[in-house]
Amino acid sequence: MTRPPAAPLPVPAPGEPVVGELSEAELLARVLPLLERPALAHVLTGPGDDCAVVAAPDGRFVLTVDTQVQDQDFRLAWPCGTPTTGFDTGVKCAAQNLADVAAMGAVPTAVVVSLTLPPATPVSWPEDFARGFVAGCEAMGAHRCAVVGGDLGAGRELSVTAAVTGDLEGRDPVLRSGAAAGGVLALAGTTGRAAAGVALLEDARYRPGADPRLDGLARAQLRPCPPVAAGPAAARAGALAMIDLSDGLLRDAGRLAAASGVVVDLDAAAVGGLARPLDPAAALLGADPRDWVLTGGEDHGLLAVLPAGAPLPRPFRAIGSCAPAPPGPAGPRPRVLLDGRAPELALGHRTGEGWDHFEP
Amino acid sequence: MTRPPAAPLPVPAPGEPVVGELSEAELLARVLPLLERPALAHVLTGPGDDCAVVAAPDGRFVLTVDTQVQDQDFRLAWPCGTPTTGFDTGVKCAAQNLADVAAMGAVPTAVVVSLTLPPATPVSWPEDFARGFVAGCEAMGAHRCAVVGGDLGAGRELSVTAAVTGDLEGRDPVLRSGAAAGGVLALAGTTGRAAAGVALLEDARYRPGADPRLDGLARAQLRPCPPVAAGPAAARAGALAMIDLSDGLLRDAGRLAAASGVVVDLDAAAVGGLARPLDPAAALLGADPRDWVLTGGEDHGLLAVLPAGAPLPRPFRAIGSCAPAPPGPAGPRPRVLLDGRAPELALGHRTGEGWDHFEP
Repeated sequence: MTRPPAAPLPVPAPGEPVVGELSEAELLARVLPLLERPALAHVLTGPGDDCAVVAAPDGRFVLTVDTQVQDQDFRLAWPCGTPTTGFDTGVKCAAQNLADVAAMGAVPTAVVVSLTLPPATPVSWPEDFARGFVAGCEAMGAHRCAVVGGDLGAGRELSVTAAVTGDLEGRDPVLRSGAAAGGVLALAGTTGRAAAGVALLEDARYRPGADPRLDGLARAQLRPCPPVAAGPAAARAGALAMIDLSDGLLRDAGRLAAASGVVVDLDAAAVGGLARPLDPAAALLGADPRDWVLTGGEDHGLLAVLPAGAPLPRPFRAIGSCAPAPPGPAGPRPRVLLDGRAPELALGHRTGEGWDHFEP
Repeated sequence: MTRPPAAPLPVPAPGEPVVGELSEAELLARVLPLLERPALAHVLTGPGDDCAVVAAPDGRFVLTVDTQVQDQDFRLAWPCGTPTTGFDTGVKCAAQNLADVAAMGAVPTAVVVSLTLPPATPVSWPEDFARGFVAGCEAMGAHRCAVVGGDLGAGRELSVTAAVTGDLEGRDPVLRSGAAAGGVLALAGTTGRAAAGVALLEDARYRPGADPRLDGLARAQLRPCPPVAAGPAAARAGALAMIDLSDGLLRDAGRLAAASGVVVDLDAAAVGGLARPLDPAAALLGADPRDWVLTGGEDHGLLAVLPAGAPLPRPFRAIGSCAPAPPGPAGPRPRVLLDGRAPELALGHRTGEGWDHFEP
């Protein structure tokens, strides 16, 4: 078939081939070795056959999928001058998928990755993606997670999809729907840092390298590092409900509250504490850091509800509580409160709550 | 982020919304009900949480992933005038993934689907995709296969990725590497029909509706229907090795031969028999139908090696045999023969063997 025009892409180094100059087999031969990890007993058949075969010792597995598309989920070049590298995209691909597995209380076991690459993509991009994916798994504590297969294809724009499986280790999955009034709302990881980071990256006033606090926020957007081991830890501690903060605290806490039939009351002091590390970015950009905490999702922190009085497993910290939903139809009443009142946002936001992929 | 210009897309019907006019939740509310199938006991947690939970009663599962991208894997409008519909894309998505599971001898159990949709995509496209996916599963005999989750996002072009899991039902997986000299090479399903179909669709001399034989070949490209139940049947019959014909008989038989350390000898009479239904297309286009049989992959037929003398399970038919690989390094000697000799192709083909995604 004809090859369509490609989207703007990274420029190859002098002499570096682009993926369209290699056969699929040649490209695989360069990328697959970078995905190898020490032999894992639960990978019964690894890459190279029609399917992988993975052990599921407790007779079940969890399964999720997530896609990142160029210029939707990452920019190859940001207005501040920083690029998104293949390595960054690999880390983020791991983060968004592993956090979903962790939010069930499961341990990530296996990944299949599909890469869509315009023919003009430098070969170093998928190589760096592979390095970033593996490094991300290690940094997030997903030491048992192996890439067991994948797909390579061409397209107009860079797109990466991963499907990840996890092992519940004999425990019940922690669903969104198990929260009960009186439960303690607890957060592992961060929220708002990646949103502050994207605001910086999008703004030419941000000068990378000039302030390590700002660079740390930009890095939270480019290379999020959710605490994957905290998911199983919460399950072992008796978590009643859990969700991955992928679309923002208000929106995701609202999903948990709706699924569980409770109201979530966020502690304003805790939200203020989460906002404090964002102050330097807010000062530079004239923004309200609390908005980032309430609506920023891409840190992929884990939000859990634990029984009142249960010790919180590390690194969870309490940020609110669950209250009974008022009787009658939910209607327009908010599912998520801030110190007992409907939260107000300084920034305008169409949905008022978080990220929507099809928002115009 | 900014919304990039979209690739050419189907035109919405008068008054029909496009996906960019709906929120993610509104779009999901339209698509998810179309993916519902009768309750399946092995789906322990279905769509709507961070992950699905799927039973793996024999303590293992198989896992694969495949992506289709607009203008790479399907054309929305073909030169002959036929469109690729969302329904077609759904069927093909099921076919290419389920055939991989079947080629391990496994029964498909669960799917997660990621759809990348330009904002100007008519809402009927993902709806038709869902209908086609479910209808495809039914037509292919994958009655236990349930969509358990997914992802929706925006992009410049339509792209669909599915990851599928399967249940080995206590049997060993059938790998590519188990073939032995003396084994019978057998095919379930077809090969070459989808390749003839794409040649027709790409050619304005083909007039859809004028000749049902040609229309059948075009349909094999648009809506392939591999015999998914034949995979587990082959495993029960003692298949030594198996592969899904996704990249062409020569290329995929060569992969099986290389993994097994054998030479595959195709029976020229059998290849001729497979070519006969392609004669009307070959006559119209001035092509050699045998080339389609040898290099066309998208029918997703199953190629298995069974022990000599074992009865072939239906619908497998013998199309060749396995011989010992000659001693010494493989080097340039062909792994796949036709009646004992290196096959020659009438059509030029860069790799000489089948489809390569990055072929210039």
